[in-house]
Amino acid sequence: MSEHAPGELMAAEIAEQPEALRRLLRDGSDAIADAHAQLRQRQSRFVLFAARGTSDHAALYAKYLTEIQLQLPAGLASPSTLTVYGTRPDLRDVLFIAVSQSGSSPDLVDSTIAARECGAFTVAVTNDAASKLAAAADLVVDVRAGIEKAVAATKTYTTELLALRLLLVGPDGTAALPDAAEQTLADGSGVTAAQRYRYAERLITTARGYSYPTAREAALKLMETSYVSAQAFSAADLLHGPLAMIDAGIPVLAVVSPGRGGDAMNAALDRLRDTGADILRIGPGGDVPIAADGIAEDLLPILEILPFQQLAWRLALDRGSDPDRPRGLAKATSTW
Amino acid sequence: MSEHAPGELMAAEIAEQPEALRRLLRDGSDAIADAHAQLRQRQSRFVLFAARGTSDHAALYAKYLTEIQLQLPAGLASPSTLTVYGTRPDLRDVLFIAVSQSGSSPDLVDSTIAARECGAFTVAVTNDAASKLAAAADLVVDVRAGIEKAVAATKTYTTELLALRLLLVGPDGTAALPDAAEQTLADGSGVTAAQRYRYAERLITTARGYSYPTAREAALKLMETSYVSAQAFSAADLLHGPLAMIDAGIPVLAVVSPGRGGDAMNAALDRLRDTGADILRIGPGGDVPIAADGIAEDLLPILEILPFQQLAWRLALDRGSDPDRPRGLAKATSTW
Repeated sequence: MSEHAPGELMAAEIAEQPEALRRLLRDGSDAIADAHAQLRQRQSRFVLFAARGTSDHAALYAKYLTEIQLQLPAGLASPSTLTVYGTRPDLRDVLFIAVSQSGSSPDLVDSTIAARECGAFTVAVTNDAASKLAAAADLVVDVRAGIEKAVAATKTYTTELLALRLLLVGPDGTAALPDAAEQTLADGSGVTAAQRYRYAERLITTARGYSYPTAREAALKLMETSYVSAQAFSAADLLHGPLAMIDAGIPVLAVVSPGRGGDAMNAALDRLRDTGADILRIGPGGDVPIAADGIAEDLLPILEILPFQQLAWRLALDRGSDPDRPRGLAKATSTW
Repeated sequence: MSEHAPGELMAAEIAEQPEALRRLLRDGSDAIADAHAQLRQRQSRFVLFAARGTSDHAALYAKYLTEIQLQLPAGLASPSTLTVYGTRPDLRDVLFIAVSQSGSSPDLVDSTIAARECGAFTVAVTNDAASKLAAAADLVVDVRAGIEKAVAATKTYTTELLALRLLLVGPDGTAALPDAAEQTLADGSGVTAAQRYRYAERLITTARGYSYPTAREAALKLMETSYVSAQAFSAADLLHGPLAMIDAGIPVLAVVSPGRGGDAMNAALDRLRDTGADILRIGPGGDVPIAADGIAEDLLPILEILPFQQLAWRLALDRGSDPDRPRGLAKATSTW
């Protein structure tokens, strides 16, 4: 990879996202509509998600979709309980959805095999339909993002979000997303914001409801590319303890989107302002805007993460590191 | 509270834990054994936990107990989906367990009422059997910790862990805990360790399996008392991204206990050592030892957190703050 300039791969993959979303809607929607119909027919009573890293944030988004729109109880499985501890729970009536860019991490593959043996109906959401994870599952959803070369995942995250929304809820309102993603990226406020955090060693991201996964993924992107200690909190949890550490020296990046989650942020932001915190609001009409006209609340996370990706990329470059190749990390991580 | 010296309340409550555990076993075990029998009879198929802050880490511990020992799928509910988004999921066959020291946070009370209306059998695990949460639930488990005055929760955390273990699994092996807690506190290595982190602005806690909630609670304790940016990761998740930010300048506090979770830590610790990280091992035979002779793996979290509480307390005092009254926090936090 030495022929590439630092950050070249990540920049290209960030820019590719509107097209990746368009491709998934165009080429993938029939297969996902079939999968959606199969899931509806099964009438599962509980949904379990298994994932690691960036994909875990996509799974968290899908958990909100499941709880709010499918009105089903859902949980994020601890992969270790099925692998390290070797449990064999009763998973009849359970829908088990594993999310993984590479589809290769042994603990996810083994968890999926175990879940299927325990009676769950299993789905793999992955960027590699020929992966071991795909082979292990009853049903495969291909996010069709194309090969992702940068270690920091970007286009596989947004396509995982969209694929999970298509799979669990359906395509309503998704047609407008590619253009909205294009507009949001073109604004470039995420890049500009990098100046403000040039010397920040730690920062907080916060959000609520559907947007909470955005805060989590934003923090991971900043950690893995810019080596800043970025911590994500649901705005409600932030008030239960971590609030104490916030002062004017720890910037807060708050995702404030319209809708019920965004409304619930207001009380938390008022409390934060009292601490003298330096707050940046990301969202429609915020300091870093999102092109959200006509986009439903549950689709906004697909757009909200874009300026954070730009911020992480620019900040890493400004600090002299290569966001394409964070130290110590490989593209696919094997954990057991 | 101005008549107290800084940290006096927290120190007293940390020291009180062996006695609080003893009291819960002596005075509470009959009532919890009844509750345990009721839960067994119901044969729930899924378990949902709802909690915030410190109690959320007790709930996470209970999730591991549920998955591994009850062999049931479990999830941590997002309280906001039942309150902010007002969903009404089908929760028949679901056991819903809310955990809260004060039993007063509106979102937990409302979630419990909603879960009960949706068909779940609801249990409140709380330190106030006369609270609104207790009134809302079908069954109440009183952790009998006595009034907790310090804002940073200590004795209500360890008694919540023990109460949840008694409720879900039973009393096997718990009789040895109070003495082991006493021995662990008497060692005092947690206090000594504070010197090493006197000027650390950020640090990482990590663990796996049953001990992962310990890493989470330890990070929260350090954040709310010492204002350090403490981040907790499962050792598996750490390798998926956050590893990049770790170098010799960011200390890692690793919970390494015997058992399957501890065994799984080894690969992660090897990777961490390659980064030059400054690692402190907390656990039986570690740099900060735990008196774990004859204590089963699933009970160790009740002991592991003790030196972290001592560390947080000492570090806060060394840095000139009052761990009894962290800035910006009240004892019971109301969130919606």
